[in-house]
Amino acid sequence: METVQGGLKLHGTRDSPFCARVELALKLKGVRYEYIQENLNQKSEELLRYNPIHKKVPVLVHDGQPIVESFVILEYIDETWKEPRLMPVDPHRRARIRFWADYYDKEFAPAGRGIIVQKGEEQEKAIKEFKEQLSILEQGMEEEFPLGQPFFNGETPGLLDLVICSTCRWFTVLRELVGMSLVNEETAPMIFSLVHSFMELQIAEDTLPQHEKLLAHALRMREKALNSSD
Amino acid sequence: METVQGGLKLHGTRDSPFCARVELALKLKGVRYEYIQENLNQKSEELLRYNPIHKKVPVLVHDGQPIVESFVILEYIDETWKEPRLMPVDPHRRARIRFWADYYDKEFAPAGRGIIVQKGEEQEKAIKEFKEQLSILEQGMEEEFPLGQPFFNGETPGLLDLVICSTCRWFTVLRELVGMSLVNEETAPMIFSLVHSFMELQIAEDTLPQHEKLLAHALRMREKALNSSD
Repeated sequence: METVQGGLKLHGTRDSPFCARVELALKLKGVRYEYIQENLNQKSEELLRYNPIHKKVPVLVHDGQPIVESFVILEYIDETWKEPRLMPVDPHRRARIRFWADYYDKEFAPAGRGIIVQKGEEQEKAIKEFKEQLSILEQGMEEEFPLGQPFFNGETPGLLDLVICSTCRWFTVLRELVGMSLVNEETAPMIFSLVHSFMELQIAEDTLPQHEKLLAHALRMREKALNSSD
Repeated sequence: METVQGGLKLHGTRDSPFCARVELALKLKGVRYEYIQENLNQKSEELLRYNPIHKKVPVLVHDGQPIVESFVILEYIDETWKEPRLMPVDPHRRARIRFWADYYDKEFAPAGRGIIVQKGEEQEKAIKEFKEQLSILEQGMEEEFPLGQPFFNGETPGLLDLVICSTCRWFTVLRELVGMSLVNEETAPMIFSLVHSFMELQIAEDTLPQHEKLLAHALRMREKALNSSD
């Protein structure tokens, strides 16, 4: 592990996939960091000072300088600690990775959230939307990425792999909530295979939240959303 | 002007600041491209093929390969044609540029849009929101960027300068719509000075839409929004 001069701190929460993707990137790069657990009901003075505009986690503080927003942090990490690379060298491939990572956060992940916070007919609609988004994502991955390597990035996970895989335990939560598997070998073979490769890594086991905790978190989200909409 | 092997085409519309920032970047880099004017009421077959997911402009097609989403395109342009640089070299400075560019599109620009499409009390609220966002942006720029250079990027405009300045004629449209200047030397001296430097460039005059056209476009947006909300 490389110790970073001036110090490296990550402010985060354990349930957040946005924080998990940053932690995973730091672990892949082999740099030593201090993890600071935030309580979002009572945000630390440091968090508010470092991210006064969005007041959100994750915040990476490197040598006293804050970097915020998970994509911005991932690019920063890749530009600061070079190996193993999270992004390809070719500009066109980089553009495709950025496009799909943005798509994942803006279109795909909100569809999954819809399933958690809706019920009845609205939840049925959310499930349909999720399946459509999953199919777009899967088709995109089939067109974009070569077969025969464990990750879209190659032998080691890259930015897009981390974005997708940091949410993979949410797939299990969704299965439990709706009583059927949505992401599997039939519905999304590329994503399924990617997640399978990823879950064999020690850093995945060490970093991703446990299923029970995530399920409890999802149920709290659900209760809050359903109460506020009644 | 550098002629690009394999061809370089930009699908866009003349009213869109997202397209303008890409055109401005290409002109700064001195690369020759073909501009393809899209009609968003009747999108071309090429646009739908090149951007099947979002179906939006701008789309840059380089050597037959499409790149979509304006930030992704700007980073692509900067990685493909190196000089003059749109982004600094230092990773922390790059992160700050990406943060503010994202903030501009996600928080600041929608506040401006709110002024156009609302009336009465709702418009008053939108103006208040816009002023608050402008003050956050101005303060951020004061803290982040050195004084004494014409652009945040230095002697030539960079990614964040292009993002801000591609919308600058909308400021004049807003002034006309609400009957008062919102962005000026008193309310936002850094932004005002930046826009002033930018408007002295020939590429600004050549690329940005004329005021009358933009105003007509804003009035159409306004009419459509107010009719649909009645």
